[in-house]
Amino acid sequence: MKLYGFFRSSAAFRARIALNLKGLDYEYVPVDLLKGEASKPEYRDGLNPQGLVPTLEVDGLLIAQSLAICDYLDEIKPQPPLMPHDAAGCARVRSLALFVACDIHPLNNVRVLEYLTNQIGVSKDQRLAWYHHWIHEGFVALEKSLSRSPATGKFCHGDTPTLADVCLVPQVYNAYRYKVDMTPYPTLRRINETCLALPAFDKARPENQPDAVP
Amino acid sequence: MKLYGFFRSSAAFRARIALNLKGLDYEYVPVDLLKGEASKPEYRDGLNPQGLVPTLEVDGLLIAQSLAICDYLDEIKPQPPLMPHDAAGCARVRSLALFVACDIHPLNNVRVLEYLTNQIGVSKDQRLAWYHHWIHEGFVALEKSLSRSPATGKFCHGDTPTLADVCLVPQVYNAYRYKVDMTPYPTLRRINETCLALPAFDKARPENQPDAVP
Repeated sequence: MKLYGFFRSSAAFRARIALNLKGLDYEYVPVDLLKGEASKPEYRDGLNPQGLVPTLEVDGLLIAQSLAICDYLDEIKPQPPLMPHDAAGCARVRSLALFVACDIHPLNNVRVLEYLTNQIGVSKDQRLAWYHHWIHEGFVALEKSLSRSPATGKFCHGDTPTLADVCLVPQVYNAYRYKVDMTPYPTLRRINETCLALPAFDKARPENQPDAVP
Repeated sequence: MKLYGFFRSSAAFRARIALNLKGLDYEYVPVDLLKGEASKPEYRDGLNPQGLVPTLEVDGLLIAQSLAICDYLDEIKPQPPLMPHDAAGCARVRSLALFVACDIHPLNNVRVLEYLTNQIGVSKDQRLAWYHHWIHEGFVALEKSLSRSPATGKFCHGDTPTLADVCLVPQVYNAYRYKVDMTPYPTLRRINETCLALPAFDKARPENQPDAVP
């Protein structure tokens, strides 16, 4: 099993967490996004037409999209499960995960920030304001959802990590990296700390990857 | 079963397609995004903390995020399935669906376009260029993925509609609405037409909703 990733990509971070939670060994193949390696023909044509990371390669099968990777891993290695066993629980976990994966993360992706700078000509301050805006917009709602629900436990859903935590932790990581004020989000901070205390999450952190740049 | 939606929201469009494919009756409750109804406290506090549509209400359970809604429907009413039965097929379908749901659609959401106009002060032309850019960026890769894979059939995956088609059709609809040149995407056009010939997709179209505005 090979994971094509980049230390700082939060989508790749999710895939690493899922692989670690499942206890699966994998070969990590760095794709240097700073050098545009994911946009090169050999990566786009051979591995991932979108030119994005991560890509998981399993016996010739190529899987793009971090959440598709997580679901695949959950299917081929059901224990420990990334999803609850009841339909309502699954819906809640998926909804929390997609909340981050669809409505926060894509807006702050490198390619989007580059478009803002290069095509629209925004200033550094405007770019940072954009970044913070979408995180706050999402985190306010996420904090409300999590803090009010009796289904929230030590983790986003109950007392074991799920797909929701797999998505939350890399997003909180980005927030800290961009110095977003996390004071208003005590539940997100608490769950993030609980997750990072587990080796599966800790080992997946960007700075613990072989391609990490200080 | 109640679906809170807006005729033009492509996430709500997805949920309507899934409900129709499953043959489920539902009450459609319009939330007027043009009047900002999804951002009002009664909607945010009571139904959807994100202030987005759609929200599905089933026996007191509230589900946000269109893909979480689709998966829930697939779980409570497995026939006809929205996902293939093999792990590799599921991964492919999920990857295609997320491709649209994470990497095209969120960038062209109303709230994002409004931020570009109101906070960054982009011109109408810049806003349109932004819109077209992310659709082309995504569609080039999607066309390549679909046209090259032997797994593509009458629909995105094989000869029955899946979650991938549920996501594709509303995105192609938006592309036509914004006059994106669809000439380079013959596979996307063909699958879109095949889908829209089915009543489940046709009935879900924005113009066929009670809250449609010409």
